[in-house]
Amino acid sequence: MKYSILGLTISALMLSGIAFETASAAERSSGHPGTPESEMRYKGAPVPIDPSKAQESVNSAAPPVSAAEFVRAKKIYFERCAGCHGVLRKGATGKPLTPDITLKRGTAFLKTLINYGSPGGMPNWGTSGDLTEADIDLMARFLQHEPPVPPEYGMKEMEASWKLHVPVNKRPKKQMNNLDLSNLFAVTLRDAGKIALIDGKTKEIVQIIDSGYAVHISRTSYSGRYLFTIGRDAKVTLIDMWMKTPTTVAEIKLGMEARSVETSKYKGYEDKYAIAGTYWPPQFVIMDGNTLKPRKIVATRGMTVDTQEYHPEPRVAAIVASHEHPEFVVNVKETGQVLMVNYKDIKNLKVTTIGAARYLHDGGWDSTKRYFMVAANKSNKIAVIDSKEDKLVKLVDVGKIPHPGRGANFVDPKYGPVWATGHLGDDTIALIGTDPKRHKSNAWKVVRSIKGQGGGNLFIKTHPKSSNLWVDTALNPSEAISQSVAVYDIKNLDKGFEVLPIGKWSGLGEGAKRVVQPEYNKAGTEVWFSVWSSTKDESAIVVVDDKTRKLVKVIKDKRLVTPTGKFNVYNTQHDVY
Amino acid sequence: MKYSILGLTISALMLSGIAFETASAAERSSGHPGTPESEMRYKGAPVPIDPSKAQESVNSAAPPVSAAEFVRAKKIYFERCAGCHGVLRKGATGKPLTPDITLKRGTAFLKTLINYGSPGGMPNWGTSGDLTEADIDLMARFLQHEPPVPPEYGMKEMEASWKLHVPVNKRPKKQMNNLDLSNLFAVTLRDAGKIALIDGKTKEIVQIIDSGYAVHISRTSYSGRYLFTIGRDAKVTLIDMWMKTPTTVAEIKLGMEARSVETSKYKGYEDKYAIAGTYWPPQFVIMDGNTLKPRKIVATRGMTVDTQEYHPEPRVAAIVASHEHPEFVVNVKETGQVLMVNYKDIKNLKVTTIGAARYLHDGGWDSTKRYFMVAANKSNKIAVIDSKEDKLVKLVDVGKIPHPGRGANFVDPKYGPVWATGHLGDDTIALIGTDPKRHKSNAWKVVRSIKGQGGGNLFIKTHPKSSNLWVDTALNPSEAISQSVAVYDIKNLDKGFEVLPIGKWSGLGEGAKRVVQPEYNKAGTEVWFSVWSSTKDESAIVVVDDKTRKLVKVIKDKRLVTPTGKFNVYNTQHDVY
Repeated sequence: MKYSILGLTISALMLSGIAFETASAAERSSGHPGTPESEMRYKGAPVPIDPSKAQESVNSAAPPVSAAEFVRAKKIYFERCAGCHGVLRKGATGKPLTPDITLKRGTAFLKTLINYGSPGGMPNWGTSGDLTEADIDLMARFLQHEPPVPPEYGMKEMEASWKLHVPVNKRPKKQMNNLDLSNLFAVTLRDAGKIALIDGKTKEIVQIIDSGYAVHISRTSYSGRYLFTIGRDAKVTLIDMWMKTPTTVAEIKLGMEARSVETSKYKGYEDKYAIAGTYWPPQFVIMDGNTLKPRKIVATRGMTVDTQEYHPEPRVAAIVASHEHPEFVVNVKETGQVLMVNYKDIKNLKVTTIGAARYLHDGGWDSTKRYFMVAANKSNKIAVIDSKEDKLVKLVDVGKIPHPGRGANFVDPKYGPVWATGHLGDDTIALIGTDPKRHKSNAWKVVRSIKGQGGGNLFIKTHPKSSNLWVDTALNPSEAISQSVAVYDIKNLDKGFEVLPIGKWSGLGEGAKRVVQPEYNKAGTEVWFSVWSSTKDESAIVVVDDKTRKLVKVIKDKRLVTPTGKFNVYNTQHDVY
Repeated sequence: MKYSILGLTISALMLSGIAFETASAAERSSGHPGTPESEMRYKGAPVPIDPSKAQESVNSAAPPVSAAEFVRAKKIYFERCAGCHGVLRKGATGKPLTPDITLKRGTAFLKTLINYGSPGGMPNWGTSGDLTEADIDLMARFLQHEPPVPPEYGMKEMEASWKLHVPVNKRPKKQMNNLDLSNLFAVTLRDAGKIALIDGKTKEIVQIIDSGYAVHISRTSYSGRYLFTIGRDAKVTLIDMWMKTPTTVAEIKLGMEARSVETSKYKGYEDKYAIAGTYWPPQFVIMDGNTLKPRKIVATRGMTVDTQEYHPEPRVAAIVASHEHPEFVVNVKETGQVLMVNYKDIKNLKVTTIGAARYLHDGGWDSTKRYFMVAANKSNKIAVIDSKEDKLVKLVDVGKIPHPGRGANFVDPKYGPVWATGHLGDDTIALIGTDPKRHKSNAWKVVRSIKGQGGGNLFIKTHPKSSNLWVDTALNPSEAISQSVAVYDIKNLDKGFEVLPIGKWSGLGEGAKRVVQPEYNKAGTEVWFSVWSSTKDESAIVVVDDKTRKLVKVIKDKRLVTPTGKFNVYNTQHDVY
């Protein structure tokens, strides 16, 4: 039996290289075939990388590929393979596919693997009907040649793409609308290439605004005035929420694929800079915070933290702004290095490279906002970064493929302050002690591992004013589990969890839908969930009362196309989680 | 008429990408054909990069090259072309030669260029008889394919090459010989792959020690006990001068081509770390100072300072140790960035990237050792780096292709403290004011430009106890000029210079010989010059009395094969220049 939800583009969330791995882990335990990230990403959707721009090359020892075949093979590779194997084929979630390896395997072996897939997670591209026999033969030959390298993207290209729609002096001096800005939700409408601004009180859509493709995150500036979005296609938009209607005042394209954007938050630098990290090219860019004018590009290509070997494609995962220094915390996936990028003087840029573990993904602050907790998802570890001292505190062993989102901070009745993460690869939630002063013996250890509904967790959430801990299981292969959430009483964790059937409450009826990403309103009294269906089907946002755990409202609207990430302005602005 | 000194391997000095440019500059003014650096480098000498290891690839749009032809073309490219055009063909001293450019030119154009050369400095490989018609045809086709990429070289390769001949606990606790260590000269015997230790008083050769090929520099540790050498083949040796006879106690190979080595000098870190920078791969390595055990590798690949575009091959030029912080000053050639590498905590490595100008080469401290003056030879500028504040102070416009070596510090009677550099591309010496406190209006400006014998200057030198300024003109096309030096009275610069016929004093008779690199003894009373002949001919070192400017001694010995750089232990240890 195939996933009923095969058509879903799950990797819109902060999941690159993850969904596939999880699906295959789930597959091994359940017998369900996995849904490869690369397929989900690109099916029927624009391709972020333009494959025709990749410079082709031929290895004379490999079986021949004609010029016309190269064009087709590059396109297939970018659409089906790059998400897991990397554009340079050095391997990430998938295995490396460089000619030194593929030439030894040979055409026949490669054809079989592409056709039938593998228990290790390689999809069955042939028997699934996705690739023809001719295409499989082509790909088997193509993979024995050098990986085509996509073009670089430097200051010239960025400046050419930069559009300042409304200069700073044409913008209002105060808020010109009556919106309750701090309780707005910016909701990614993944496949529409837009975001929706939804009022937190009325639950009405205030506005739909064009964005990049599949906005990965929306971030609020320190002042709360500006909203930044970043698409998977590396397009950043800057929305001025003070204008009569919130308006995109600037935009820029920073490369071919991206995930992360953040704004400066340190005293004296509020709203001054923005930073964005790209997957390709592997680099980050510091921009002016109120215009997106690009100022400084820094490559992340360098050495892996453990073996100290050169990696040509270290992609930028999560970026957060430090509260201890005028710094950005830039997490580099493939090298496992955390870069503390000091923006005090960008002409003489100071960067502290903290060795953590591979592959860094996302994470969040502890409750004091001194320690950044970041998942190293191939190492099954959480790296604890001290943003005050700019050094690694500890690598904490957790469960299989931690995926915290920002994680959840609360006070464990027995162990004191903890930060929690769920996992993609198992059904546990790890609680890590975060108070080295008053709970020293618990600090930077898993003090408690609690059981959830199952694997496939993406996001976990609580709020300082709540005593609930919400845990989704969006990527679980069981429909019953992926369409519901677990909620725990953090004052009585031993009691276990209650299951809320969010999917059922949405009233969307039969069909593929995943319940994903709990997000609080500003007051911490309501929790919003995305019920995310395929592009063809209706989606919804379900709002739950935090105290009573009862349904408050189902938000449905034909404009709500594939809603995924929801970002409450106040909580995003103040790193509340 | 061809250079009579065509066989000389001039680029043994710190000249990569320079000698060629100079020769061609000289050529334009004198009508002499130039001697390309790449030819000089490799003629009859081991090739530092193993071309067979470069991964070949084929561009299907380019004219075909057979597998056997690829092997030959790669070898020719590394031997003849890489020195100027870079292994990735992005261009440096020579023009870029990537397929996007070469394909447009086409085979016929490329053949003509390779055969006849160009007034811009491209050698006439065909009409000179160096390449056959068949080879020229091959190279014209080969250049339209992707540049073969040499292999990476990471921790695994470094550790495998590391040899600790004498562990620390087997070494003496005090000096076990009677040598006057501080007045020894470490002399590179370029083509022998050795160094000579010569006593500064007796002028006798104390010992000949194996080293890497064409040792680029020798550096003394802070304590004066250890001597580091680095070969062009990226082999570093560590010599313990306290042993009964100075002995190589450790060695390591760090890549395929290199130029720079330095040791930590900041209080509390004396002799603790060594650092070396490589040309390929483009990176630097921090090692334990007493064993050469590699600890941390950092890639230099990144963005150019001006256009902010990605450069895949930013080679590491000069490295010096800061006296203001526990930092190394790492000058990156192709990006024009100066990296202040803080070695206080190499697991959480802090690096300040100071944007300067392209292409950084070498330089020296001002007299206070706070400001580092580094040549940007393609920009005709000296970048002034404040090592206390870790920032760029100024880019000072100087003459054509500044080549300071370490430069020369003295007090100009009119303008106060200055640091001086000569130039490869013109006959001037630029004096830059370096005292922002008491001579503020002169600081970081060329206060005086004095005329020398001619272009082709490599090194300029004075000493705190001397009132002479010595200027060689080793790369001048005129034999009379390249075989003599100019000396100025720094108390009366307007008087002009006296010419000393060092080549004639050497008594080596007819034949190719260049007079290069004045180096003081510890006391500052004598100046040593290399008289550098071809491998076939006898060379010598000529010692001159600084006060009287008269010949003291000619050091000749059949073991003195192609002596080039000479490094007085004390002056190197204390950055005296």
